[in-house]
Amino acid sequence: MTISGAARVSVLLGDPLHKANSPGYYNTFFAEHGRNAVLVPMEVAPDGFDALVRALKQVRNIDGLIITMPHKQSILAHLDVLGPTASIVGSANVARREADGRWAGDMFDGPGYAGALAARDIEVPGRRAYFTGCGGVARAMAVALAEGGISALRLHDLDASRAHSLAALIRERYPRIACEIGVAEPGDYDLAINATPLGMRPDDPLPFDVSALTARTAVSDVTTQPVITPLIEAAQARGCRVTTGRDMFDTQTALTVRFFGWDR
Amino acid sequence: MTISGAARVSVLLGDPLHKANSPGYYNTFFAEHGRNAVLVPMEVAPDGFDALVRALKQVRNIDGLIITMPHKQSILAHLDVLGPTASIVGSANVARREADGRWAGDMFDGPGYAGALAARDIEVPGRRAYFTGCGGVARAMAVALAEGGISALRLHDLDASRAHSLAALIRERYPRIACEIGVAEPGDYDLAINATPLGMRPDDPLPFDVSALTARTAVSDVTTQPVITPLIEAAQARGCRVTTGRDMFDTQTALTVRFFGWDR
Repeated sequence: MTISGAARVSVLLGDPLHKANSPGYYNTFFAEHGRNAVLVPMEVAPDGFDALVRALKQVRNIDGLIITMPHKQSILAHLDVLGPTASIVGSANVARREADGRWAGDMFDGPGYAGALAARDIEVPGRRAYFTGCGGVARAMAVALAEGGISALRLHDLDASRAHSLAALIRERYPRIACEIGVAEPGDYDLAINATPLGMRPDDPLPFDVSALTARTAVSDVTTQPVITPLIEAAQARGCRVTTGRDMFDTQTALTVRFFGWDR
Repeated sequence: MTISGAARVSVLLGDPLHKANSPGYYNTFFAEHGRNAVLVPMEVAPDGFDALVRALKQVRNIDGLIITMPHKQSILAHLDVLGPTASIVGSANVARREADGRWAGDMFDGPGYAGALAARDIEVPGRRAYFTGCGGVARAMAVALAEGGISALRLHDLDASRAHSLAALIRERYPRIACEIGVAEPGDYDLAINATPLGMRPDDPLPFDVSALTARTAVSDVTTQPVITPLIEAAQARGCRVTTGRDMFDTQTALTVRFFGWDR
C-alpha cells in the first residue's frame, strides 16, 4: 500500500521524537492492514505547538493527533470533548476529528498501565502503590490505579511541587485513598513504580533502593528505551513481578487503534 | 523501510489532493531507496494556507514542501530565496529549508515542460506556440518556451484578464517574442498547448478544434488524469507528435529529487 494523495493523515506531536515508538508501530500496522494512511512525526517545541495544532485542524485529510511529551497538557485547550481519563488527569494523548467537526481527546497512558498490570495478573484493589516521579505519565497511572481501587499511594518527586499537585488531585477526587508524600523508598508497598526517566541512560542510578524489595512487591517502569531497564533487571533478580514500558505501549496501541477506528 | 519517529518529512500542499500523483510517486521512491522519509498530502483551502505554512516551518523534521494548485502563488510570501524560474513566473512548486534556516523555492512546471519537449525531440528555438489556458501552469510553460527561444506566442483564455496578464509578462521580459491575444484556434502554430482542465472529464469538449491540424504541429496537454486525453488521442490520429502531463511529471520528478537532495 503506497501513501497516495488520498491518504488519511494522523500526526504525532512531541519533542523530541526521533526515538518515538508510535510512528514505526502504526505505519507498519497501516501497511499490514492495507490502509492508505500514515502517522507523521512532527517534532515541535512548545512555543510552536498551539499554532501548529490550529493549522493542522484546518487540513481536511487529517483525522487525528497523537500527542506525547511535552504537549499532553497543552493539547487540552484545542479539544471540544474530553474522555473521562483526560478530564480527570488534565492531559490527553489522542485526539480525533468527529463527524460533526468537533475534536475529541482522551488519555490512554493510565488505561495502558492498568492493562499492563492485568496482563501480568497483578491486582490493584486494596493494594498500596509507591511512585517515584509525579509528572504527566505518573498522574495518568495514579488515576488509573485510583479508578482500579488502590487503597494507598505514596508519592515522591525531586520536584516536590509535582508530588503535592498529584496528591491534591488524588485527595480531592478519591478521598478514601490514603495518600502521602514520601521519601525515595518503596518500603513494603505492593507496587513500586518508576515514572522518572532514570534508566534510559546506561549510567543512570537506580530510581530507588531495591535491596529491601521482596517478591510481594511488583515493580513497574515506564520507559521503552530500553525495555529492560536496570531497575527491571534488579527487580526480576529479587523475584518481583514486573511491568515494562513496552507492556504499557502494547495495551495503549490496542486502545488507540479502537479510538481512531483503524480496526474498521 | 518503516516511517519511524526519526523520519524526515515533506508536505504536499494543495486542494484538492485526492488524485495528486506526487505522494504515490515519492513515497514509492523513498521506500525503494530505503529512505526514512515521507511526503504527506495536506489538503488545505486558501484561507488556511498561510497559517499552515508558518506552522510547518516550525516543525524541526520538516525539510521541504511541494506546492500545487491553488497555492503556487501564495507560497512566495513564505520564501526567502527564489530560483530563477520562480521569480520570473511569480509562483513556486517546491520549497526547502536551507542549512542556514532560510527557505528556498523554485518552480519546475516550466522546466518540466521543456524536458518533455526535449525528450520527444520537439524543437523550441524560432518556433511559434499557441496556448489555450493562461493560468499558473501556462505561465510557467510559456516562460520556459521563452527561455528556450520561442519566436511567437498566441494566448487564449476564457478569462481574458489571465491572457493579458501573461502577455504583459512576456512582452516586458522577452520583447523580441511576438505575443498576441488570440482566439481559441491553434492555426498553423508549431506547438498547440492545452493548459485548461478540459479533458479531465470524459464528456469535456476538446479544448480547441483539431480538424485543421497537420503533422507539423506538436500538441501538448498538461493533465495526468487521464494521461491520454481525447485531445492527445485526436492529435495522434492526425500524425502530430504529442507531450502529455505524464511526460512533464517525469522530468519534474527528476528535478525535484535533485532539488531536495533525495538522490544523495
